[in-house]
Amino acid sequence: MLTPRGDDFPRWYQDVVAKAELADNGPVRGTMVIRPYAYAIWERMQAELDRRIKATGAENAYFPLFIPESYLRREAEHVEGFSPELAVVTHGGGKELEEPVVVRPTSETVINSYFAKWVQSYRDLPLLINQWANVVRWELRPRLFLRTTEFLWQEGHTAHATEAEAAAFAERILGEVYEDFMVEVLAIPVLTGRKTARERFAGASNTLTCEAMMGDGKALQMGTSHELGQNFARAFDITFSDETGSQEHVWQTSWGVSTRMVGGLIMCHGDDAGLRLPPALAPTQVVVVLVRAEDGAGEAAATLRDELVAAGVRTSLDDRLGTSFGRRSVEWELKGVPLRVEVGPRELADGVVTLVERHRGTKTAVALAEVVDRVGSSLIEGQRHLLAEATRLREERTVEVATLEEALDAASSGFARLPWAVVGEEGERRLAERGLTVRCLVRADGAGIAATEEDLVAVVARAY
Amino acid sequence: MLTPRGDDFPRWYQDVVAKAELADNGPVRGTMVIRPYAYAIWERMQAELDRRIKATGAENAYFPLFIPESYLRREAEHVEGFSPELAVVTHGGGKELEEPVVVRPTSETVINSYFAKWVQSYRDLPLLINQWANVVRWELRPRLFLRTTEFLWQEGHTAHATEAEAAAFAERILGEVYEDFMVEVLAIPVLTGRKTARERFAGASNTLTCEAMMGDGKALQMGTSHELGQNFARAFDITFSDETGSQEHVWQTSWGVSTRMVGGLIMCHGDDAGLRLPPALAPTQVVVVLVRAEDGAGEAAATLRDELVAAGVRTSLDDRLGTSFGRRSVEWELKGVPLRVEVGPRELADGVVTLVERHRGTKTAVALAEVVDRVGSSLIEGQRHLLAEATRLREERTVEVATLEEALDAASSGFARLPWAVVGEEGERRLAERGLTVRCLVRADGAGIAATEEDLVAVVARAY
Repeated sequence: MLTPRGDDFPRWYQDVVAKAELADNGPVRGTMVIRPYAYAIWERMQAELDRRIKATGAENAYFPLFIPESYLRREAEHVEGFSPELAVVTHGGGKELEEPVVVRPTSETVINSYFAKWVQSYRDLPLLINQWANVVRWELRPRLFLRTTEFLWQEGHTAHATEAEAAAFAERILGEVYEDFMVEVLAIPVLTGRKTARERFAGASNTLTCEAMMGDGKALQMGTSHELGQNFARAFDITFSDETGSQEHVWQTSWGVSTRMVGGLIMCHGDDAGLRLPPALAPTQVVVVLVRAEDGAGEAAATLRDELVAAGVRTSLDDRLGTSFGRRSVEWELKGVPLRVEVGPRELADGVVTLVERHRGTKTAVALAEVVDRVGSSLIEGQRHLLAEATRLREERTVEVATLEEALDAASSGFARLPWAVVGEEGERRLAERGLTVRCLVRADGAGIAATEEDLVAVVARAY
Repeated sequence: MLTPRGDDFPRWYQDVVAKAELADNGPVRGTMVIRPYAYAIWERMQAELDRRIKATGAENAYFPLFIPESYLRREAEHVEGFSPELAVVTHGGGKELEEPVVVRPTSETVINSYFAKWVQSYRDLPLLINQWANVVRWELRPRLFLRTTEFLWQEGHTAHATEAEAAAFAERILGEVYEDFMVEVLAIPVLTGRKTARERFAGASNTLTCEAMMGDGKALQMGTSHELGQNFARAFDITFSDETGSQEHVWQTSWGVSTRMVGGLIMCHGDDAGLRLPPALAPTQVVVVLVRAEDGAGEAAATLRDELVAAGVRTSLDDRLGTSFGRRSVEWELKGVPLRVEVGPRELADGVVTLVERHRGTKTAVALAEVVDRVGSSLIEGQRHLLAEATRLREERTVEVATLEEALDAASSGFARLPWAVVGEEGERRLAERGLTVRCLVRADGAGIAATEEDLVAVVARAY
């Protein structure tokens, strides 16, 4: 039904997106329709992220979609980075506009124009704002979820009194919000590190990143957290009077993750039968599948659903007896629901139901009285299993190399690690010619993000 | 501090929006920055609505912001209604586009183009989709929350096998979702009825509405639910094979509420001291205000906050001792937090704290051990009080009249009710000349929405 991953990974991805009813192409090139099942996945991502973001003290707000063109031009690197991707509104309300407005590709410029009004004194700092919004970056080679002209995301924007505080906050977001969410909820083992100057966000002084390995060995950037230094503070004149009364520019961060993570989820855990959702994320953790309704099976299935819901498990009941059991099984496999509990009259006569674990592909007869407990432990085990499997794949496909030539070779099917001192800017250009990039710089000892240039190891890969 | 409502109601509204830090004007005319406090209110609205929407069986999804101009033109009334308000993107990715795209003013056209693909058989019906999104309608006379060029909303879109089913669903949304939310959560007593042909949504065969009276006697349309008949089904060719195998067009509905409700909330319950939030909605239901920290008051306040949180009350602690108590009190009044519990060393010595009820303006000494219980009952009473007060105001300002002349007079400061047969289309034109509209048609006996023309009573008012 699906193209096997080994035959053609990109085709397999397209097949999963279409057949699991995740998304459709929009009518305007590069745009996307997020169908209900994928949107439910996105809502679960939002809920888990939003809780972590608010725990840092950040508050949600909403800024306008339309930004005057002149705002973009205020920060030189920023406008250079985003100009080629802008969508421009030239007519509104039946008239040509005096100044064209751009559809936000990101909101640093508009948000910082308000930070300049809101920040007066050190008492107003830190100012920690997040927004959930759509953004538009015109995309020439679109791919559903991974690269779309319009995408959904959250973007955080903060202002601090000192450089050290801003740096610490950018790291906190990367670790406590993004990495924690990706590892604990998505079961995706991400590398955290910083970007080279070449790969930095347009306008940032430092970009931190979470990088994941997909099922084909390629890298996906899952989220970034930037130190903006005082670049935007100067461009938008965001100043505060410190405790001595002197006027200072603020130090800033911005950070975001997007619907691209849905693509990462598919490509990290999916197999030849479709999606595999980590239980902590899955909108439906368990589907109780009624095989046939005879001999009280219908009532037993409904009761089981109620018991699981009462136990706090996100459960649905599939009693579509008009559709064949085989077809329904294929559908739940495709959609990657972690557990199926199959309830049929024959097994019920023996006091058992069948528990199917999507992450292992195992089927086990479980006594009816033990199902709720067993589901609980199986969900926990499934979560661990997916994380362990993805970690193992990444380790198998990561090679330590010593030279750029070796990296060019090794990174064609996985991650190559080598001293950053061996790569350098000239090395990055050579990698780029072969379609490779330094995904992130990590510490050789693996302990945290900050590091001197000499300590750094470059992780090189082909990337989405 | 605020302009008194009696002096200048619109000015009072502007003052509340600015001083309670609810919203700012955006840089592009008519757009809006929703500041954290108002956004927290919106998030509470979203959570309460989303739960009710999902309880109807509808699922959330997301459709593109950009719609090809040609899509809008497919439904004649729809394009005529929306053309003057469109924002048009003519350039994307550095090039002029072959076909300009419009920024969605509403999503009937793009969503229905997908319904045409997804609906094949009667088994695919009903198809119940909702989306939370931003939309753009170029606004010449903007007013924060009430009329903004960009606003946030939810828009539901459904397809059904029969006209009766679609009609029942449109009514269900109006009653079980919108009216229930507005009355029970917002404490706003809304009239439900249907719009006259003149006031209908562009493309609908019937528009149902929730209408509220604001503090100045004017009406605000709070939400609408439309029967679309087969208008869009024909324009986008959405057909299904029924149980006999014959191809039929679906019957549809669409329905939406927006950030405009935040404006309604302000104008319905606000008083000369600022906002008054109904407890069921308030992001912060209780603020524990530390008066001074001496003699264990700081610890007592923190403990009280913890106890209230543990009791499920949305509570925050104000221990900003660097800001004067008077100034903090004014701020919480302005922000309309339902209850304040003031904790100071002098009262604590007597074993009491002061409970301030925003809805009544009363201050009561409450024994420390009784605070949690008392807060619980006071929140319930506060919710009832606001609803009762708004209902009484509406009744006082609603007049039964017999002629159009009387209506022209009475509706200048409230609602005028008169037989629809006395008004008619010619009457509507005369009302419009005086800035009045028929807000909705209701049954004379007050029982439900459906009615014959003869039964109907027109509610006439000046509206926002």
